[in-house]
Amino acid sequence: MTFHELLIGLIVVLLAAKLAGEAMERLGQTPVLGELLAGVVIGPGLLGLVREGDVLHALAELGVLILLFEVGLESDLARLLKAGPQATLVAVVGVVAPFAGGFALMHWLGHSGLVAVFVGATLTATSVGITARVLTDLGRLHDPAATVVLGAAVVDDILGLLILAVVTGIAATGGVSLGGLAWLGLKSVAFLVLAVLIALRGAPRLVGLIDRLQARGALLVSSLVFAFAAAAAAELIGLAAIIGAFAAGLILSRTELHTRIEDRVKPVADLLVPIFFVTVGMKVELSALNPLDDNARLGIALGLTVVAIASKLVAGLAVYHPGTRRWPVGVGMVPRGEVGLIFAGAGLAAGIVARDLYSTLVIVVMITTFVAPAWLKLLYRPVVATAVQ
Amino acid sequence: MTFHELLIGLIVVLLAAKLAGEAMERLGQTPVLGELLAGVVIGPGLLGLVREGDVLHALAELGVLILLFEVGLESDLARLLKAGPQATLVAVVGVVAPFAGGFALMHWLGHSGLVAVFVGATLTATSVGITARVLTDLGRLHDPAATVVLGAAVVDDILGLLILAVVTGIAATGGVSLGGLAWLGLKSVAFLVLAVLIALRGAPRLVGLIDRLQARGALLVSSLVFAFAAAAAAELIGLAAIIGAFAAGLILSRTELHTRIEDRVKPVADLLVPIFFVTVGMKVELSALNPLDDNARLGIALGLTVVAIASKLVAGLAVYHPGTRRWPVGVGMVPRGEVGLIFAGAGLAAGIVARDLYSTLVIVVMITTFVAPAWLKLLYRPVVATAVQ
Repeated sequence: MTFHELLIGLIVVLLAAKLAGEAMERLGQTPVLGELLAGVVIGPGLLGLVREGDVLHALAELGVLILLFEVGLESDLARLLKAGPQATLVAVVGVVAPFAGGFALMHWLGHSGLVAVFVGATLTATSVGITARVLTDLGRLHDPAATVVLGAAVVDDILGLLILAVVTGIAATGGVSLGGLAWLGLKSVAFLVLAVLIALRGAPRLVGLIDRLQARGALLVSSLVFAFAAAAAAELIGLAAIIGAFAAGLILSRTELHTRIEDRVKPVADLLVPIFFVTVGMKVELSALNPLDDNARLGIALGLTVVAIASKLVAGLAVYHPGTRRWPVGVGMVPRGEVGLIFAGAGLAAGIVARDLYSTLVIVVMITTFVAPAWLKLLYRPVVATAVQ
Repeated sequence: MTFHELLIGLIVVLLAAKLAGEAMERLGQTPVLGELLAGVVIGPGLLGLVREGDVLHALAELGVLILLFEVGLESDLARLLKAGPQATLVAVVGVVAPFAGGFALMHWLGHSGLVAVFVGATLTATSVGITARVLTDLGRLHDPAATVVLGAAVVDDILGLLILAVVTGIAATGGVSLGGLAWLGLKSVAFLVLAVLIALRGAPRLVGLIDRLQARGALLVSSLVFAFAAAAAAELIGLAAIIGAFAAGLILSRTELHTRIEDRVKPVADLLVPIFFVTVGMKVELSALNPLDDNARLGIALGLTVVAIASKLVAGLAVYHPGTRRWPVGVGMVPRGEVGLIFAGAGLAAGIVARDLYSTLVIVVMITTFVAPAWLKLLYRPVVATAVQ
């Protein structure tokens, strides 16, 4: 891709994102829904105006990373830790229920146990990007339900990591090493404990160092370097990069600099975050959604979608704190995003999940991703309305 | 390059840029010198920590584009137009003098006329990025000399375009089509006249439109889309993308929104601009600078460097406005940056410039690029000192 093609691509992506986001905003929806739809329209599935080259892909990845860094910055570590047991319970239910539901449905339909395992695993993922963005747009990031969803997403990522190890282990060797699993779990928990410890002890010293820099842009660049380093460290032990970025934001959220950092990060996020959601939309193949194409596939897709949504709503029922609403927690965990596709992709690569089943899973993931923003907006409507009046 | 490699690359580039920039700042130099040196140190020529992949290259290009957009935003169109004749004279002298000097030296050394033409053409370029950045860092962007340098750089880009057409025409066919040249000149001038007309007439309407957008980030994204579109348009007619971005900034500088846009663009620039200057530094091959390697080449390099610097200082002598200092204008036009390398590269590709002469030209371009920041800082020192007292 030449630089000229990149410029044209950026113009189309950003313009479509802003126009569709603006339209959704005026229709009373969240802008992210517009950005996703914009991606569907300009992507290869429909108009084919833009293809996602390496650079656009990298900008999108940096975008979601900076989004989670921003969410971490605006979070409250003390509240998140207090919500820890609650979030862990929600995450466990939100992993077990979809796995069991997906496994049972596929087994009942006569698929092999291995296929059913992969489908179940695909349904366990939670893509926190969508929910975090919607809650940010609605100004509800400090709602108790939001805290539970964010905490559960972190736990879910660790559980997902273990499930992925199990599932790919089964695919490769037919069995799983318990020692390897324990080591993976230990590394993940150690990463988070370390992040919390740095947040509580080291952050002021870090900030003292940053604060002494004089050159223009030093505050923004040094905090982004910190976020990138945490993301790279998370990736190194097998966690998602966004979990690392979220942890970096959490660490800096405890310092007095956090509002100034938020201020500088916002414009960078404004530019890069929409690129992420547009490229998510660009991955939708509308032709795969054609119901006339294959009735059986449509049936499986509908069945799995119902399982995918219902099982995450069940996770919301695991909320026991009296002040936390159950529905926003359940709906907040519905979007599977690209996280679910990683499981399905592993099954495809291992030759266990057939190509048409993979396409079906992509559709299910997409529906869950598109349904959540509008639903969350609806759930928060009365509260927002009174705030405006 | 995986996303993980990109993260590591960004961490190294940004960290090196900030540390070296900070060190230079404390030594009383401009940060850009530190960023250039950081690039030399981490680049393939020395430590080899980072290689410039597609993504880093694209981020760097976006960086210099946003820098020139920012400079345009902070410029004063009325003053720039008033300095037009003055800037044009400086640009013409700044193209004729280095061309004549480079041609004469190479001819005297016994090279063919065609080789001498390419070397002369390489020395005509002005890379406005370095000077714009230094003047911004020094807070001297509104100095009369800065206005002349910026205006001269725009004219120089058009002249450079015509020279490139002549030179590649000679390389390809042994002759030049006067009609083609006239068309190219016409397109360039039309682009700038159009930009000025839009600035004077259409900008308020454009801004009224932008101002009505409600979604978060709409102001930043729509102005960057405008800058990218202007850059793509400039590229389309053969001008440098940065000239388009500069024109876009100039257009928006006339509107009441310009301070709010500047505010939003700054953090994006803080992140991306250092990436550009570090990657410029990364292109230096230190081994090519080894004097023990080849005495004749060192002699040519020194001779061409003297010609390159002296001839642009001569351009400063073309300043006739009483209130405008001549030295900053001359020194401001010294850096050739990557613009000069395009000419040399065209000669290399055409098989006219030999590889060792090409390396020599790269060295000359690099010296002019490194010498200007420190020199400009020196020229502005007394003024800055009184301002501080």
